[in-house]
Amino acid sequence: MKNTQIVLTKRPVGLPRSTDFALAETDIPDIKQGEFLVANKYIGLQPAARIRMGTSTSYAAPTPLGMPPYAQTIGKVVQSRNAAFPEGAAVVSEGGWQSHFVSDGAGTYHLDRRIDPETFGLGCLGASGMTAWVGLYRIAQLKAGQTVVVSAATGAVGSVAGQLARLRGCRVVGIAGGPEKCAFAVEEYGYDACIDHRSDDFEHRLAEACQNGVDIDFENVGGRVRDAIWPLMNQNGQILICGLIAEYNGLDAATGPSWQVALVRRLTIRGFMLRDHNDLRPQFLDEATELVRHGKLKTREDMTIGLENAPTAFIDMLRGKNFGKAIVQVTH
Amino acid sequence: MKNTQIVLTKRPVGLPRSTDFALAETDIPDIKQGEFLVANKYIGLQPAARIRMGTSTSYAAPTPLGMPPYAQTIGKVVQSRNAAFPEGAAVVSEGGWQSHFVSDGAGTYHLDRRIDPETFGLGCLGASGMTAWVGLYRIAQLKAGQTVVVSAATGAVGSVAGQLARLRGCRVVGIAGGPEKCAFAVEEYGYDACIDHRSDDFEHRLAEACQNGVDIDFENVGGRVRDAIWPLMNQNGQILICGLIAEYNGLDAATGPSWQVALVRRLTIRGFMLRDHNDLRPQFLDEATELVRHGKLKTREDMTIGLENAPTAFIDMLRGKNFGKAIVQVTH
Repeated sequence: MKNTQIVLTKRPVGLPRSTDFALAETDIPDIKQGEFLVANKYIGLQPAARIRMGTSTSYAAPTPLGMPPYAQTIGKVVQSRNAAFPEGAAVVSEGGWQSHFVSDGAGTYHLDRRIDPETFGLGCLGASGMTAWVGLYRIAQLKAGQTVVVSAATGAVGSVAGQLARLRGCRVVGIAGGPEKCAFAVEEYGYDACIDHRSDDFEHRLAEACQNGVDIDFENVGGRVRDAIWPLMNQNGQILICGLIAEYNGLDAATGPSWQVALVRRLTIRGFMLRDHNDLRPQFLDEATELVRHGKLKTREDMTIGLENAPTAFIDMLRGKNFGKAIVQVTH
Repeated sequence: MKNTQIVLTKRPVGLPRSTDFALAETDIPDIKQGEFLVANKYIGLQPAARIRMGTSTSYAAPTPLGMPPYAQTIGKVVQSRNAAFPEGAAVVSEGGWQSHFVSDGAGTYHLDRRIDPETFGLGCLGASGMTAWVGLYRIAQLKAGQTVVVSAATGAVGSVAGQLARLRGCRVVGIAGGPEKCAFAVEEYGYDACIDHRSDDFEHRLAEACQNGVDIDFENVGGRVRDAIWPLMNQNGQILICGLIAEYNGLDAATGPSWQVALVRRLTIRGFMLRDHNDLRPQFLDEATELVRHGKLKTREDMTIGLENAPTAFIDMLRGKNFGKAIVQVTH
């Protein structure tokens, strides 16, 4: 048995190319006491994996050349010398772009039994959904009646943020790329409005949709999309930096509000990352699995079949071509 | 009796010039029921008054041409038809750069009897000191053991922020302009270190003084001073935007951390203004007057005699030439 991997062969400049990656095969090592072997079934693609493909040392360690990029995965334990993760267990891990990996349990947890289908454990009931939940509830502490703007409104995180904010009684305005996504945002996710950032009069239409200003910008995109939002920010407004997909490739130099604007409008601009808030997972799962069960939290997945297609799916996601949570099913 | 004023005659471009202001005299109107006439004794100069000399509409209304610039003042009620503010009362108001003004009580409060000398009611026991107090306690919620950097370390706000943070058990590193101010910061205000931003190796020396990184940047300056601090920010660090004196003239284009840095370090960048926190004044006065009385909160004032010298004193303050709270005594 071999481990099939997609490995990073070159650090991308700008938008990654498929030639920055290669298919590789390695031997699977024998597991030691306390370890277990996981066979990955699904790989969740995350825009932030692009950050680790660079050399920045301010984030987690960069992905070493020759190794698989970072990803959360859902898989099955196929060999075990760890009683907490017996053979057959379904687990969520930071398994990366590969078919197998050996874990000692760090960063791995059991897939909650309430999650069905199990791919939701990567999206609306996994890291994506919980990021939205943490951002709105713990970080922004949103209140009914506020106006919330969500960029990447139909994305894995954005679609959950939009629906949760609506459920809490907020006015929710989405931003998405193209009329199809915008229509879906309003009809399926219940956004009060959704503006196409590719339209000529984007800034004007966004302002019209936010006539009482913006209290919370749940920012997933950055760049010129963010720069259309901040002039609308109300006093004491909050900009949550959840993601900056437009900026990860280093190609969008938009800078956000000046510090004088942040001062006089008393803005709070705050970056957050899910990994600091794992204590909330039980509470999130209790609430979110119920919402899904009752049809109040909807989702959409964009499935790619075959590990070898992960680079193309990842590049398409960075270009906004996916529609919903981007997932790679490892085998055909 | 006439009202002597310094009025704004031209909107400054860059650093204001004395020719942007003029001395004027107006008649004092008769007071109506509910009003009272205040004779200003001291005018507290505040850098943020520069913002109102521009045309931006995002802050309070700009100072109209032909009118005195914004300032807090300490004065005495000399005529009254308002029982709450009888003749002889010492009051703190938004009285502006002038000798007299008529108030209906809005924005005016009695000078607390514990404040002695009364000029402290503009500085360490007034808006400046309370800004430091609100920023550290309500906004940043600082904790013992944190490293706090205070720019404009010997300024009216900074000197109080530095001393309060020290009293709460923080490591406090100041930034000031010139060796005299830096020495004073350490010897008088108890800063653990104070770095001269005019020195050649400023960035290097600042990093050396913050070997455990920076948890809170109490930012009064902005521009390249701020841009030497943010690379040192720890994960979950906070940048309080209290003032941006280097940027008010529009001459410093430094931009602060990129949003990607703010995201991966989970920074909070937050603007705040004292006026939103007046509910804390009694608590602030209780604590701060005791600290002053016991010699634990020291201050320094930079007094200019004569209303006609207010423009020069204001321009000097924007250039960092003052040393302590800049106050204009109205009469000779």
